[in-house]
Amino acid sequence: MKRTTPELIAAKRDGLALDPHEIQDLIAGFVHGTVHDSQMAAFAMAVLFRGMSRDETVALTLAMRDSGRVLDLADIPGAKVDKHSTGGVGDKVSLCLAPLVAACGVRVPMVSGRGLGHTGGTLDKLEAIPGFRVGLSVERFRDVVREVGTCMMGQTAEIAPADGKLYALRDVTGTVESIPLIVASILSKKLAEGIDGLVLDVKTGSGAFMKTPERARELAALLVDVAHGAGKHCVAWLTRMDRPLGRAVGNALETHEAMEVLHGRGPEDVVDVTVALGASMLVMGGVCKDETVGRARLREAIADGSGARIARRMIEAQGGDPRVVDDPTVFAKAPLEVPVRATRDGWITAVDTYAVGTAGVALGAGRTRAEDVIDPAVGFVFERTTGDKVTRGEVLVTVHAADAQRGAEAVERLEGAMTYGDAPPPSVALLLERVG
Amino acid sequence: MKRTTPELIAAKRDGLALDPHEIQDLIAGFVHGTVHDSQMAAFAMAVLFRGMSRDETVALTLAMRDSGRVLDLADIPGAKVDKHSTGGVGDKVSLCLAPLVAACGVRVPMVSGRGLGHTGGTLDKLEAIPGFRVGLSVERFRDVVREVGTCMMGQTAEIAPADGKLYALRDVTGTVESIPLIVASILSKKLAEGIDGLVLDVKTGSGAFMKTPERARELAALLVDVAHGAGKHCVAWLTRMDRPLGRAVGNALETHEAMEVLHGRGPEDVVDVTVALGASMLVMGGVCKDETVGRARLREAIADGSGARIARRMIEAQGGDPRVVDDPTVFAKAPLEVPVRATRDGWITAVDTYAVGTAGVALGAGRTRAEDVIDPAVGFVFERTTGDKVTRGEVLVTVHAADAQRGAEAVERLEGAMTYGDAPPPSVALLLERVG
Repeated sequence: MKRTTPELIAAKRDGLALDPHEIQDLIAGFVHGTVHDSQMAAFAMAVLFRGMSRDETVALTLAMRDSGRVLDLADIPGAKVDKHSTGGVGDKVSLCLAPLVAACGVRVPMVSGRGLGHTGGTLDKLEAIPGFRVGLSVERFRDVVREVGTCMMGQTAEIAPADGKLYALRDVTGTVESIPLIVASILSKKLAEGIDGLVLDVKTGSGAFMKTPERARELAALLVDVAHGAGKHCVAWLTRMDRPLGRAVGNALETHEAMEVLHGRGPEDVVDVTVALGASMLVMGGVCKDETVGRARLREAIADGSGARIARRMIEAQGGDPRVVDDPTVFAKAPLEVPVRATRDGWITAVDTYAVGTAGVALGAGRTRAEDVIDPAVGFVFERTTGDKVTRGEVLVTVHAADAQRGAEAVERLEGAMTYGDAPPPSVALLLERVG
Repeated sequence: MKRTTPELIAAKRDGLALDPHEIQDLIAGFVHGTVHDSQMAAFAMAVLFRGMSRDETVALTLAMRDSGRVLDLADIPGAKVDKHSTGGVGDKVSLCLAPLVAACGVRVPMVSGRGLGHTGGTLDKLEAIPGFRVGLSVERFRDVVREVGTCMMGQTAEIAPADGKLYALRDVTGTVESIPLIVASILSKKLAEGIDGLVLDVKTGSGAFMKTPERARELAALLVDVAHGAGKHCVAWLTRMDRPLGRAVGNALETHEAMEVLHGRGPEDVVDVTVALGASMLVMGGVCKDETVGRARLREAIADGSGARIARRMIEAQGGDPRVVDDPTVFAKAPLEVPVRATRDGWITAVDTYAVGTAGVALGAGRTRAEDVIDPAVGFVFERTTGDKVTRGEVLVTVHAADAQRGAEAVERLEGAMTYGDAPPPSVALLLERVG
């Protein structure tokens, strides 16, 4: 006998397994309104406490993927591989990675999200480019992927609508932090893109959603396992998010920094993550035999300017001003620059990266609610960071602000985010390990 | 800084305590629609996993009580004491208890519920009395309590509306089985009645919601503790619900049996529970110095017919036909009587009381959904029960049915509910212990 929705919730509550078709029914009912928001919220909370098996998570992911349109890019020649990051502060890697990988012969169809909470979003950074449109039709997306090699668009109502609905519900019901629900949310959208494989950047540390390596490892393992269960190639990198990635935080500032990577002038940490993830994508796409070769290929695509060429073409194809790749003055610029100065001599031993993210949001670079409007020009440029020796009065960060009051507030928050010590902190590897 | 609703849900999810005013805000927001059903469902599921402290449960109970009108019966002289049972099969105790206690000088203002699931409800049993109205105004309720000594009405939209809304939500979200939520649901309504004290019958066994004495004891202890925290006298009795209470199951049949108790012809188990609970009420109401005296007083009120007199007056005051107290032919009668016979010689060692309850629902005596219409006439009369020696072919139960098909179905279900053995089962005390 078919179990009712309350019986399915009670089964999960009691730690019993659900069949794949029961999970499908639940998601279909949720999208069609026969399973109420209240029932899905109670189910999500039960999942948060009880977890889900790999098979249940695969079923949930596929049910959410199949709630909307699933793109088929089989008619576009070559491998299609995408990248996803679980989110951090200053993470602009997608913007340089996609053109570089495309320049090496693997297509990158990328459906991205907006920033919410203390982390930024790729769409917001792209929209810092004058004229750039992220709201494309699926047909236009497909054409740009075919012609340019990469295209970066926003999620549409057609793609995995169950995910949009469930995410909004989780956001207000304290059920964001469930690893199986995070996995299904990430993968349902990515599996709808028509890709052959996916490389994941799972971040851990004070600026990440996963504060400990253990939780990040658990998430990475389930992501890879479920992606495999859905028939896709998948690799995850665990990377540290204990300080902002690169020097820039804020949409135009970060997009500019990503363009600097394409010119070989990017900060070392951004380049390292870009090259590591990209090498996995090239191997997955079958154009390099191993990651050592892949990394060399990507550094060539920087050196020979082929990544920058793809970036100009992609930006142009999406209505943006391609001059941003070479000329930072094309970006909007904040009227004020305010310095954050070292309050003592010594070493910076830690930067509270979550505090940096929320300071950015308060400055206008991010949003606390989906409907908030962001200011592309505001943000921070770090001159010094964790591990640097500093002298009292020296400039640590330049705040780009819309007005003096918000500038002063940001300075205060950033001063509070810095920890000093009398000796350098132990150095920590940025790339922790590869899963899958 | 005031925590948002998602933060309150997350705090409970993480096992942290909520302040009383936070719980008040949550309930007020839920009633006014600013806290969504989905948020309250997620909160309820978090409570199911994490529990609530005594102080949190007191705050929840008072917030739910204060969501509606709180009666003040201070102008009615004497003590006002009510009784509540957590629900069982064949539990008609309220119907004889209230008139008997009122006859001994303690007023009983009783707001009751309807049956849902496998257990019956007092309102349904009362409505088996021709003409009886349970939907009274608060003013009429107060008048009948003052003039007659007891009145039994249904919950109105005015009394604890948060409870009605939360119960409906819990019913569809797998969150019924949380002890703090059960406590708040029971007590919020009872505390709104304007009573001085409350005696609880917490049932345990195959026919109860609490299957084990441990769970029942936990529920009883928290009920008493929270009632004390709300400033009321409270005592709980743990009683066995391993077989139907009394011989009758079904609305008219049970109401008749309760009237038989008033005439001194009631089944021993129904009388024992009635007298035990009633004695606690008389002590609580200050009219007897101890329970031994109380029990004797109640047996007098049976012997001298004073309980029956109060019952006639209450029924008349509520529009019902008072002849039911003395004449069972006034009740509706089912057209068919079908016997359930012993399938072997031996002892009845167990009656699956949950199965008896659901067989009654299937016969039309109860409801599976709130909108189901019940048939007052149908039900069962047990001639034999657990511990009785029986001979193959002997009548165990008489089924009162509306038609042959449903009668046959009930016979089959009841046959399946009986367990036989070659020796009598160990006898078990009906009244397990008193808490508080």
